[in-house]
Amino acid sequence: MGEVASQRVVVLGAGRVATHLVAALVRAGHNVAQVWSRTEASARRLAEPWGISYTDDLDTVIADADVYIVCVADSALPLVAEKIAQRVGETPLLLHTAGSVDMGVWHQQGAKHYGILYPLQTFSMERPVDMHEVSLFVEASDADALAQTEAMAHSLSDRVYRADTEVRARLHIAAVFACNFANAMYRAAHDLLSEAAIPFEVLLPLIDETASKVHVLSPVEAQTGPAVRRDGNVMQRHMEALAENHDLRQIYEQISKYIMQ
Amino acid sequence: MGEVASQRVVVLGAGRVATHLVAALVRAGHNVAQVWSRTEASARRLAEPWGISYTDDLDTVIADADVYIVCVADSALPLVAEKIAQRVGETPLLLHTAGSVDMGVWHQQGAKHYGILYPLQTFSMERPVDMHEVSLFVEASDADALAQTEAMAHSLSDRVYRADTEVRARLHIAAVFACNFANAMYRAAHDLLSEAAIPFEVLLPLIDETASKVHVLSPVEAQTGPAVRRDGNVMQRHMEALAENHDLRQIYEQISKYIMQ
Repeated sequence: MGEVASQRVVVLGAGRVATHLVAALVRAGHNVAQVWSRTEASARRLAEPWGISYTDDLDTVIADADVYIVCVADSALPLVAEKIAQRVGETPLLLHTAGSVDMGVWHQQGAKHYGILYPLQTFSMERPVDMHEVSLFVEASDADALAQTEAMAHSLSDRVYRADTEVRARLHIAAVFACNFANAMYRAAHDLLSEAAIPFEVLLPLIDETASKVHVLSPVEAQTGPAVRRDGNVMQRHMEALAENHDLRQIYEQISKYIMQ
Repeated sequence: MGEVASQRVVVLGAGRVATHLVAALVRAGHNVAQVWSRTEASARRLAEPWGISYTDDLDTVIADADVYIVCVADSALPLVAEKIAQRVGETPLLLHTAGSVDMGVWHQQGAKHYGILYPLQTFSMERPVDMHEVSLFVEASDADALAQTEAMAHSLSDRVYRADTEVRARLHIAAVFACNFANAMYRAAHDLLSEAAIPFEVLLPLIDETASKVHVLSPVEAQTGPAVRRDGNVMQRHMEALAENHDLRQIYEQISKYIMQ
């Protein structure tokens, strides 16, 4: 991309996405001029360590930044988008980070240059994230907005893709399986080991290798275990061992069936 | 553990476990004297690159090694265990690597010193595995056999634990969830992305971070996504999008319910 112009940015929100985004923006050389959050405490918690000014009042958000990035819960997005679009006028670029909310949320407020910057990652407050390794999906209202959004995305990450509403919806469902549901499988394993007082850490090398394998093999090629071997004896024994755990038994049966297809 | 005596070892089997075990044994300084496999081709494929002699005839397995390690399919184990126990007598240590087969398989053949060395890992022919990072679970017939088995295990890995049949059974089920079923979730994501011509690699940073998070957070703390937020709108939309994919829709519903508990 060559050099990226430093942008004057306001971040709206102070949750997990906002927290990691502010860190990435600062590191990429952008000027994060202000953080807004619904409560002063959460705005301060995010902004203060970086020496950024903050507010809990949308009417005091500065109006002359280059870019406004809204990272709030989907349900709060329409209201925040409306207030910001009204306050800052037609010049700046208005972005949100919600994979499930389409650009209509900006269009309906009469915004002129707007878009979406959707990071496909699971963010925790407790762990730093290298944003350069995060897949960022962008969409924008017009060619100028797209160029500006892409330039900003490239300044943050090496993995920038364009995606419309349909692609984002598909990505979001895929991410629920690959991340949220994979983690639920870790939790099932954790529950099963706890009952027998076995430390969860014995599984970590296996979990790491399972994730690493799909970098070089497709998940179908990487599949191991009783279901793909169609080892009915082992599956039967496992189902019996799960007799008193109705939910895990049903999940065992369902996913084994899926693997055997 | 201090220094580990080099053992003269025969490996029976030439599948994934045997292949990675031979590599780890050689690297740990043991003398792998022979490989047996059901077919000469598979025995040669494994043994030849290491300059190890090989056979496909159980009657020509050398009888004076220190340790015999049987790594064959569960269903083939009783027969191989019987032949080996008869052939090599009461002096050497007889081990197998099957998590689901208990020590009775040795006892019933009149073996005297025997045990189990169960590596909790998913092995592929295509990928090297650092055995030092693999959790190894050991059990043995008597104190001497246990000491010998543990010494060998410690020479291969930094993660050695004792485990009886009940613990191994529990570990195996937990591993099915944490590895086989987590991989099945990757496959579901892969299927969903393929339908929309989106490359699977966009998910890899998310998959890696999901695996990394449970090194520092419990899976319950690490859980993200619509189900744990009880975001009914998003779940409803995802279920509708999966309307034509009956299996994935059922899995979506089932696991979301599990997460919401």
